[in-house]
Amino acid sequence: MPTHAGRPIVPECGMAHLKVTLVLNSGSRIGPGKAALLESIRSTGSISAAARAMGMDYKRAWLRIDSLNHSFTSPAVERTTGGTGGGGAIPTALGSDLLARYRRLETEAAKLAMADLEALERHARPDGGPKI
Amino acid sequence: MPTHAGRPIVPECGMAHLKVTLVLNSGSRIGPGKAALLESIRSTGSISAAARAMGMDYKRAWLRIDSLNHSFTSPAVERTTGGTGGGGAIPTALGSDLLARYRRLETEAAKLAMADLEALERHARPDGGPKI
Repeated sequence: MPTHAGRPIVPECGMAHLKVTLVLNSGSRIGPGKAALLESIRSTGSISAAARAMGMDYKRAWLRIDSLNHSFTSPAVERTTGGTGGGGAIPTALGSDLLARYRRLETEAAKLAMADLEALERHARPDGGPKI
Repeated sequence: MPTHAGRPIVPECGMAHLKVTLVLNSGSRIGPGKAALLESIRSTGSISAAARAMGMDYKRAWLRIDSLNHSFTSPAVERTTGGTGGGGAIPTALGSDLLARYRRLETEAAKLAMADLEALERHARPDGGPKI
């Protein structure tokens, strides 16, 4: 599983955690899905390889990146051309900055939530309720 | 608009903010919707009045409370009987504790995110991209 600073990019199943989502004035959202996708594009060098690595179909990945690119005045991911493997994609400086901010915030917020999650888990049912 | 410690319970439309969701081991989620619903039940004294105050249909509110109640070994909301208005509902000690933890965490996390949201808004398009 790909990791970021030694921890899983996407929290493992069955592990209590805090999910954080940045919501911009426009209503655009940047959450764990888009952050993991940016990270995967950075490490694989293309949207299609990133989608494949995440078990996500290409169309879904492309729509998320398109949404992200239209959230800002300049793109978060840009196409690369040429090279032996043909064209690919990489996060721009803006995309890298966004990813770094998201991961830092997620880590800091997780620290804040640790005691609360532990306290709530003491009263939690392992099977939980309907997921809504 | 109802407020909590002087700020809106639900962030106003068109205001950048951080959305936080507690995800338990079971996968159960406690986010801004359930927190606002617990708050509304506390102030109105029933699920139906809370739903009405939030412009939410009763079934939807009931399903959320049912999900919350089944996430823990004891309920977060309990029925009250009698009184001039007949039966109602109130958050239990567990429900009140959950709500207090969620609001405190949300406030602390919002402080962490303030500078990031400001920095990102400088590059954001007012209309944003597709909302996915």
